[in-house]
Amino acid sequence: MSEAASPADTGLLSPVRAGTPAEAATRDAAWLQAMLDAEAALTRAQAGLGLVPADAAATITRLARAELLDVRAIATGARETANPVVGLVAALSRVVAAEDRAAAEYVHRGSTSQDVLDTGAMLVAARTLRIIRADLARAAASFAELAQAHRDTLIAGRTLTMHAVPTTFGLKAAGWRQLLLDADARLGRVLDEGLPISLGGAAGTLSGYLAYARIDGWFAAHPGAGDEAYVAALFEAFAAETGLARPALPWHTLRTPMADLAAVLAFTAGALGKIAADVQSLTRTEVGEVAEPSVAGRGASSAMPQKRNPVLATLLRTAALQVPVLAAGLTQCLVTEDERSGGAWHAEWELLRECLRLAGGAAHTAVELAAGLEVRPGRMRENVALTGSALVSERLAAELAPRVGKAAAKRLLTGATERAAAEGRPLHEVLAQVPELAGEFGAEELARLCDPADYTGAAGVLVDRALAR
Amino acid sequence: MSEAASPADTGLLSPVRAGTPAEAATRDAAWLQAMLDAEAALTRAQAGLGLVPADAAATITRLARAELLDVRAIATGARETANPVVGLVAALSRVVAAEDRAAAEYVHRGSTSQDVLDTGAMLVAARTLRIIRADLARAAASFAELAQAHRDTLIAGRTLTMHAVPTTFGLKAAGWRQLLLDADARLGRVLDEGLPISLGGAAGTLSGYLAYARIDGWFAAHPGAGDEAYVAALFEAFAAETGLARPALPWHTLRTPMADLAAVLAFTAGALGKIAADVQSLTRTEVGEVAEPSVAGRGASSAMPQKRNPVLATLLRTAALQVPVLAAGLTQCLVTEDERSGGAWHAEWELLRECLRLAGGAAHTAVELAAGLEVRPGRMRENVALTGSALVSERLAAELAPRVGKAAAKRLLTGATERAAAEGRPLHEVLAQVPELAGEFGAEELARLCDPADYTGAAGVLVDRALAR
Amino acid sequence: MSEAASPADTGLLSPVRAGTPAEAATRDAAWLQAMLDAEAALTRAQAGLGLVPADAAATITRLARAELLDVRAIATGARETANPVVGLVAALSRVVAAEDRAAAEYVHRGSTSQDVLDTGAMLVAARTLRIIRADLARAAASFAELAQAHRDTLIAGRTLTMHAVPTTFGLKAAGWRQLLLDADARLGRVLDEGLPISLGGAAGTLSGYLAYARIDGWFAAHPGAGDEAYVAALFEAFAAETGLARPALPWHTLRTPMADLAAVLAFTAGALGKIAADVQSLTRTEVGEVAEPSVAGRGASSAMPQKRNPVLATLLRTAALQVPVLAAGLTQCLVTEDERSGGAWHAEWELLRECLRLAGGAAHTAVELAAGLEVRPGRMRENVALTGSALVSERLAAELAPRVGKAAAKRLLTGATERAAAEGRPLHEVLAQVPELAGEFGAEELARLCDPADYTGAAGVLVDRALAR
Amino acid sequence: MSEAASPADTGLLSPVRAGTPAEAATRDAAWLQAMLDAEAALTRAQAGLGLVPADAAATITRLARAELLDVRAIATGARETANPVVGLVAALSRVVAAEDRAAAEYVHRGSTSQDVLDTGAMLVAARTLRIIRADLARAAASFAELAQAHRDTLIAGRTLTMHAVPTTFGLKAAGWRQLLLDADARLGRVLDEGLPISLGGAAGTLSGYLAYARIDGWFAAHPGAGDEAYVAALFEAFAAETGLARPALPWHTLRTPMADLAAVLAFTAGALGKIAADVQSLTRTEVGEVAEPSVAGRGASSAMPQKRNPVLATLLRTAALQVPVLAAGLTQCLVTEDERSGGAWHAEWELLRECLRLAGGAAHTAVELAAGLEVRPGRMRENVALTGSALVSERLAAELAPRVGKAAAKRLLTGATERAAAEGRPLHEVLAQVPELAGEFGAEELARLCDPADYTGAAGVLVDRALAR
Repeated sequence: MSEAASPADTGLLSPVRAGTPAEAATRDAAWLQAMLDAEAALTRAQAGLGLVPADAAATITRLARAELLDVRAIATGARETANPVVGLVAALSRVVAAEDRAAAEYVHRGSTSQDVLDTGAMLVAARTLRIIRADLARAAASFAELAQAHRDTLIAGRTLTMHAVPTTFGLKAAGWRQLLLDADARLGRVLDEGLPISLGGAAGTLSGYLAYARIDGWFAAHPGAGDEAYVAALFEAFAAETGLARPALPWHTLRTPMADLAAVLAFTAGALGKIAADVQSLTRTEVGEVAEPSVAGRGASSAMPQKRNPVLATLLRTAALQVPVLAAGLTQCLVTEDERSGGAWHAEWELLRECLRLAGGAAHTAVELAAGLEVRPGRMRENVALTGSALVSERLAAELAPRVGKAAAKRLLTGATERAAAEGRPLHEVLAQVPELAGEFGAEELARLCDPADYTGAAGVLVDRALAR
Repeated sequence: MSEAASPADTGLLSPVRAGTPAEAATRDAAWLQAMLDAEAALTRAQAGLGLVPADAAATITRLARAELLDVRAIATGARETANPVVGLVAALSRVVAAEDRAAAEYVHRGSTSQDVLDTGAMLVAARTLRIIRADLARAAASFAELAQAHRDTLIAGRTLTMHAVPTTFGLKAAGWRQLLLDADARLGRVLDEGLPISLGGAAGTLSGYLAYARIDGWFAAHPGAGDEAYVAALFEAFAAETGLARPALPWHTLRTPMADLAAVLAFTAGALGKIAADVQSLTRTEVGEVAEPSVAGRGASSAMPQKRNPVLATLLRTAALQVPVLAAGLTQCLVTEDERSGGAWHAEWELLRECLRLAGGAAHTAVELAAGLEVRPGRMRENVALTGSALVSERLAAELAPRVGKAAAKRLLTGATERAAAEGRPLHEVLAQVPELAGEFGAEELARLCDPADYTGAAGVLVDRALAR
Repeated sequence: MSEAASPADTGLLSPVRAGTPAEAATRDAAWLQAMLDAEAALTRAQAGLGLVPADAAATITRLARAELLDVRAIATGARETANPVVGLVAALSRVVAAEDRAAAEYVHRGSTSQDVLDTGAMLVAARTLRIIRADLARAAASFAELAQAHRDTLIAGRTLTMHAVPTTFGLKAAGWRQLLLDADARLGRVLDEGLPISLGGAAGTLSGYLAYARIDGWFAAHPGAGDEAYVAALFEAFAAETGLARPALPWHTLRTPMADLAAVLAFTAGALGKIAADVQSLTRTEVGEVAEPSVAGRGASSAMPQKRNPVLATLLRTAALQVPVLAAGLTQCLVTEDERSGGAWHAEWELLRECLRLAGGAAHTAVELAAGLEVRPGRMRENVALTGSALVSERLAAELAPRVGKAAAKRLLTGATERAAAEGRPLHEVLAQVPELAGEFGAEELARLCDPADYTGAAGVLVDRALAR
Repeated sequence: MSEAASPADTGLLSPVRAGTPAEAATRDAAWLQAMLDAEAALTRAQAGLGLVPADAAATITRLARAELLDVRAIATGARETANPVVGLVAALSRVVAAEDRAAAEYVHRGSTSQDVLDTGAMLVAARTLRIIRADLARAAASFAELAQAHRDTLIAGRTLTMHAVPTTFGLKAAGWRQLLLDADARLGRVLDEGLPISLGGAAGTLSGYLAYARIDGWFAAHPGAGDEAYVAALFEAFAAETGLARPALPWHTLRTPMADLAAVLAFTAGALGKIAADVQSLTRTEVGEVAEPSVAGRGASSAMPQKRNPVLATLLRTAALQVPVLAAGLTQCLVTEDERSGGAWHAEWELLRECLRLAGGAAHTAVELAAGLEVRPGRMRENVALTGSALVSERLAAELAPRVGKAAAKRLLTGATERAAAEGRPLHEVLAQVPELAGEFGAEELARLCDPADYTGAAGVLVDRALAR
């Protein structure tokens, strides 16, 4: 099939993830492989319990390879059954039967589509979450360096788009790092508490697994053992083979793991989006306080040769704009009726995949942004100077109020500020000549009080505190 | 590259659209082709105005074929520029230059990435909307037949999951059709009012196009003509070459067309979701009033040989669960700062594509559902009989109230209903013996009043009315 | 009840709508009144058809006043029935019965909760949409003036946060106006095509209405008339009494009007959000090209006396951030099973109200923003000067390419730009000394080509074009 | 002001929360009080550090009462400043000054609007979360009883709306309980890890607090102590006074707490929505396996006297339909530029409030649903009988396959099932006569294998396992 006629999508409309490790971990072939891994692990688990011949399990494991199946045929075949597992089982059975007809009988033994798809989804999620965590750690380390290096680098604090009081660039970078640590902690918790195997059978009672355990002689081999013992053994074995956790109950319609994933991925994308918004705000031509890492060809425009667009931040924002709504869709799928929903389960798959790869692509993109961000302390100082002593008006009001009263303080400050602007003189000189303040401040003290660099509050202290986390 | 190593997705997780015409119309290759169509149309438009040699335009048009470019390379290259057009222009220029170096100078002349991507997106949208409309029309025609055939087929009207008053299956089907007509009308309006070309240049002023018009001699050839004349001519020519509409203004950051598409596609998916919800409600084992079309292998379960799952309705619901949140994401991208957003534009692409192909896949699926839906009037009557005269309690209350007062009517009815149930007798017989009602009704009249089949209200009339639309 | 113990909310957390006309039009009392208006209109419609005594209808109309009922009691009572209409009908019946026991029999005759609630909702929506349209028209008129006045006011066009090519402030304002016209056109269409009465009875068959028509003698009085005639007459009369439109079918579970409202309100909020994003971008301390209208106390900070925050734009953004997701929730309620959903209908009410009043509050806020926006052409020119001739690099590349080839043009320009920056000389002087360009341009021509003010493309022409709309 | 003219909303359109404790905890007056609590706590904290006279702190604490302020005036006044705190501070200062002019100087000392609003929001959230947890615990206890009592109550397992294999009602109830435990665990974690105080000052550097600490003599009184010591002391004192946690950094634009709340509240609402979906599915007239608790007047219809609608489940679904999209809006507000966003912060408030009270109202509603749910084992058995042995086809296929091969097993079963249906005989009798199975099974064994009650798999075991959690 020629590429142009191919039904395939390869990220053309989603540059934030095109070519990233998270994309590779979530592509159709990876998902298919994860479901095959689930089938193989189930067979090995059953073999470990003596229900399936060891060589059948080995054969199935060896042949459960995505590259041996036709993923497109399984995809379109899924229209007949509303899920791709029916077709996958048939195709895998054929591949196995071609080599060992007897082994094929053990494919998907006692199982159900949802066990395979959900276990596969958890494998994909776990693999992708580990990739994301590694990238977040790298980006956080870069931001830690920036925070340390610029602990006391003066920059205008801005609220509602306007200069407010001074802060430091280090505090800003420490905040970015903190968000990534928060994201990492939440991702880590989901991984540590364990994404679970799905093992419920047709309607969450494990009926098929138990039926085969009986037929295949497990109960005969374990006199006195009840259903509970077999269920516990099967959970244990399947969890061990997949590396996933054991759930409290089959979760076909108890979708906590999906909601947990939705929440942490939306948070991750949003956290990266906040960093991107700051970088864009500071990159603006008139602000110019940071620049994205310079790479040949990066940020090129098709029309304007001089431009160096902040493309990494732009990519981050695309994830931040998409993942929260996709995650809402996923969370709504909690509302699943009966023992398996007619739609709410099936709607999760693509939403989860997109959440994973957008958040993962964004994390990967952030690594490069963080490592190469160019910081311009000179421009930061120049911009602070634009509003000059206005940045310390909060302090001046606090200093004057106890001396002349709140109302008078405000009046005097307004007057002095206007005079300073009109006459082009520094505010502290004008204040020195205000009659009502005669004798209250020394000239040097006034100059210090009016100096934004002296009014960064606890910014440095907060950086230390944050980096100690 | 082997398929298993391929980054490609081919619908494995999205059966509602796998293999449908809407998928084909929105795949990466189709999107790439649409952007190439935009480039070629622009060149032809400029050629028509005398700015570009006709044979250069012809060469570019001939070579602007997706199959000549490497879509994956363009996709991953887009990470450097945040959009795929920079890479597309470079690749197309190389292909053209290999055949005619001079012609390559005219590729993307005066243009900007957004003009090409947005025009391409509108071409993709227009093509997909036409596919959707055709499918909706086919499904609506099937529902019209069902409405006609079952104009008077008695069925329990259900509210909040419980029997309420009788209705007819025809009215239900007429309602489904009406929703599809509503969707079609909204899609048609978007198409008729015209999805617009994008023509703005670097920042929406058409500066590059005008610069080249000057350089390429248009103004010299049209003495007395001002910028306005050229702008009007270029809009006209590009619109004619693409078959798209002319916008009032360049819309790089005036995203009305995107919001319009989001709205109609969310509506379409939601309308189909309502139909699916009804089909599922009626399909339930205990209800059994309809069944999805029976096809060999359709609705098979990997675990339960006897099942025939309502898979088409299930697929429809997956679209209804996804498109509204995706559309919300798209609508939020209205908030684009400046002359081009650093992210809000770029986040639209994948969201729009998913809305198009999910709605389109669902419409295609609905055609089959509508055409083959199996209707079971017998089961409908049996179910009506379950609650018997309770379905006409509204009418009985209305009939009795004027005779004995509202309160007494309620008391008498409650008592009679309980007695009828306890004694297993028809309600009308019990009512005939209520002393307070002596002489009020004849036996036959009471039997008629208690007959659900006689209390379908204006259902039939409403079907006629709806089908006349 | 003391205010502090009151369960009431009065907009404390939603300043964008606190105290606006849209808030007044959507408050609980307004909604209650609208439902009472529906009840009264229904009675008058039935009276007009001869089913209800005229004085009973008059009495009901006179007493159907929100101030006579206890809205809180109805609100909490709704927990027993899942909707407030059951309690409303009981309360209204009591009020009417206290004055005229016979008239009370005609309250809600043949009707159902959903007819009253939905008709009331449409009345609220229609009233609020008219308010919004008036506000949008006022804001659009102000933007038209700005567009006219600043048709040629030079400003840097910005893409991905950076200077791109020049544009004019007038074109920006014309774009804002265009978005408001787009919103207005969509709101107008919803109003013109008509928000419909709801008239379906218990399960959409009009059964109760027909039963009473029979009991009350309409068919006896109209020999030969069938159900169709009565249905048509009732639709006509109820529509006339409410001023709403007649639907094609009862729409209890065909929620097109809700989806239409969701779409236009999300668009309106998003359009206003785009304007706010631009105002904020231009307001930034370092940019300073516009300022919000100055009003005493407006934009005050609790901490910083000097600040004048862009609060109107801030309020607009709160609506733009909320309405699209609320609208998505509303759109998802399209998926309503059976003849009345057990939840999807009930979830619409608060979502619709919030969409209406957030969009309406934002429109009202925009009026003031548009009327008083302070524009600073001087700062615009100063900012353009920051990047100087870089803003015309697109043009220079276009001009040089035909003379020396694309590649050489790029190389020459890069070199000249660097030299100009390093030596602090105007680019056109440096270009004049480039040997490869000797004889190609006159000095004056070069100066003109390098002047951003000469490179606003079709900005002015586009303003004219847009204002002619 | 008459109620009808009041701008107030009292839950008319949101019965799921009208009159519930969560509504009371989140109403405007509660929010205002929480912000006043924050102001008072800040003053006490500063008094504890020796900066504010103790009696001034006591006076402020005593007068910081919502009932002393005009909440509506503060709400509408917030339009001038984009947040209600500026007006609140002014009003509180006036109230305090009226009693003690000197004490008024200490109101909001060194603080900023966001510190007060965010701390107030965390107080409201913490209070509401505790209410929700208590309700979830009560509902979970009721479901535990149901699970225990119906551990082995046979019911049809249903997938994609159709009978699949048998399960037990106890397992269903155990699953509901598990979801509530999951929700509770997540809510508990947010509470245990601590919702944080907000303490950052104008731009997150604590500058104002430090300025006043200097002016008010803290550093003079603590020679050798640096900014770090004061910051630590103030964090400690404010946290102690409010009962909230200490954040790692000021979080004005690091909105992790908001995203965490959004996630747990969406999960809670979704979990309750799943329970509601099941209750509705089982309540359906044709299914009739459960009924909502019967209360006089509950579930009444305005049109149909006989109905007893599942109104509690309906209310739950309204929350499940709304909270996930509201939570998505809240999560998107993570993207906040600079040191305070111009909109993303302000958009959070109403979204958070709605999430809290919808989830809280739903939890409260679930208590009653769980405690009074009527379970009908008889109807469950009757419904199982509808599909008879089809429910065990999975088992029969498993049993036959090893004996006759997979394909033959399927063929034999299909034939036998059809014959049984056609002849109206039990499947096990028909199977006993199938020649290919002669001698394979005893009659009793066949009867047992065909009995759904014998095929509930591990349902009972899973109930035990879940209840042990």
